[in-house]
Amino acid sequence: MDEVIERIRRFRDERDWKQFHDPKSLAVSIAIEAAELLEEFQWKTAEESRQHAIDKREAVSDEIADVAIYLIELADVTGIDLEAAILSKLEKNARKYPVEKSRGKSAKYNEL
Amino acid sequence: MDEVIERIRRFRDERDWKQFHDPKSLAVSIAIEAAELLEEFQWKTAEESRQHAIDKREAVSDEIADVAIYLIELADVTGIDLEAAILSKLEKNARKYPVEKSRGKSAKYNEL
Amino acid sequence: MDEVIERIRRFRDERDWKQFHDPKSLAVSIAIEAAELLEEFQWKTAEESRQHAIDKREAVSDEIADVAIYLIELADVTGIDLEAAILSKLEKNARKYPVEKSRGKSAKYNEL
Amino acid sequence: MDEVIERIRRFRDERDWKQFHDPKSLAVSIAIEAAELLEEFQWKTAEESRQHAIDKREAVSDEIADVAIYLIELADVTGIDLEAAILSKLEKNARKYPVEKSRGKSAKYNEL
Repeated sequence: MDEVIERIRRFRDERDWKQFHDPKSLAVSIAIEAAELLEEFQWKTAEESRQHAIDKREAVSDEIADVAIYLIELADVTGIDLEAAILSKLEKNARKYPVEKSRGKSAKYNEL
Repeated sequence: MDEVIERIRRFRDERDWKQFHDPKSLAVSIAIEAAELLEEFQWKTAEESRQHAIDKREAVSDEIADVAIYLIELADVTGIDLEAAILSKLEKNARKYPVEKSRGKSAKYNEL
Repeated sequence: MDEVIERIRRFRDERDWKQFHDPKSLAVSIAIEAAELLEEFQWKTAEESRQHAIDKREAVSDEIADVAIYLIELADVTGIDLEAAILSKLEKNARKYPVEKSRGKSAKYNEL
Repeated sequence: MDEVIERIRRFRDERDWKQFHDPKSLAVSIAIEAAELLEEFQWKTAEESRQHAIDKREAVSDEIADVAIYLIELADVTGIDLEAAILSKLEKNARKYPVEKSRGKSAKYNEL
C-alpha cells in the first residue's frame, strides 16, 4: 500500500495538481467517480451485476480504481492513515452490529 | 493492506453478510457513503473544507473508512486486486494526461 | 408549478439563503439528497422497492421533494426554465432512442 | 407541469420502458444523473460555477433535465404528487428552520 500511495503522490506532484486537492474538491470527485462505478450496474439485477463484473472486468476495475485513487488522495491531504481509519471504523461497526443480532440480516445495514 | 482485507472479510463473514454483497448492492452502498462524505463539506469553500477536516477529523476519517470498506468488499467479491487496479489505472491516466500538457491545469481533470 | 417555484423562492429569501445558492453548491446538495433517496432502497430488490415505496410513502415523498427543491432552486438561479429544459431534453432523447430500436430494451438506457 | 408529465409518460410507454422503472432503479438513475450534473462544476469555485452555468447553458440545462425526468418518473410510478410533496416538505423545513434562527446561516443547512 505504501508503494501505491507513493505512486499516486508522484502522479499528482509531477502535474502540480496538489493545489486543486482540497478536501471538498476530492470529496466531490469521489462522489462523481462512485456514480460512474454505479453506472456499470444501472438497470441490472443483483445476479446480472455478478456476471457483468466478470464480462466487463477491466471497466469495473478502472472505475473501482478511480474511486480508490481520489480516496487515497483525500486521506493523504488530510493526514489520515487509511488503514488505521478502516480498522477504527470496523471496531465501531462491530459494536453497532453485534454478531448475534446482525447475522444474516441485511436490514441492519439500513442503519449504518 | 492484507491484514485490513482479512479483517473486513472476518467482519462480513461473522455476520453472514456476503450473501448481500453482489457488485450492484456494493456499488449502491459506495455511492451512498460517498455522498455522506461529501456532506461533511456541503456549503463550505475549499479553504473551509481544509479546516473542517482538521476540526472534525474523526467524523471525516469515519466517512472515508465507510467508502473504503465497501470498495474493498467490492474488489474482494469481484476478484479484483485493488492495488493492481490502482497501478494499472495510474498508467492509463499518465498516458491520458501527459506531464507536459497537464501541469497545473485542473481543467484537464474534467475529461477524466 | 409557478406557485411551487414562488413558495420555494419565498422560503429561501425569508432566510436570506440565496447567497449560498451558487450552481455548484446546489449541484452538491442535489447529489447528497439523491443519495439519501437511494438509501431508502439500499439492500432491496426491485420488487421490494415497490413495496417499500408503499410502506414508507411519507419518507420516500420527503426524499423526492428534497431533490426536487434543490433542482428547482438550481434552475431558478441559472435562469433555466425547468419545464422547457425537460421538453427539450425529451426531444433529444427521442432522437437518440428511436421507438423502433428501443422498445423493451433497458440496455439502451446504459448509453443515456 | 401536467403536460410535461404526460409527455414523459408517452416517451416511456412508446418504448415499453415502464417495466424497468421500479423505484430502486429510478433512484439509482437519479443518483447517477445528479453526479453528471455535479461533474459540470467539478474543480470550479462557487464563482466559476456561476459563469460556467452561463457559458455552458445547454449542457447544464440538459443535465438538470435528466435528473428531473427520472424524478418525475419516480413520483409517477409511486403515485406521489410531486408538487404536493414539495409543498409538504417546505412546511416541515419551515418548522425545522425558523426564519429568525436561520437567517443568513448556511450552517443550519448541514442538519437538513
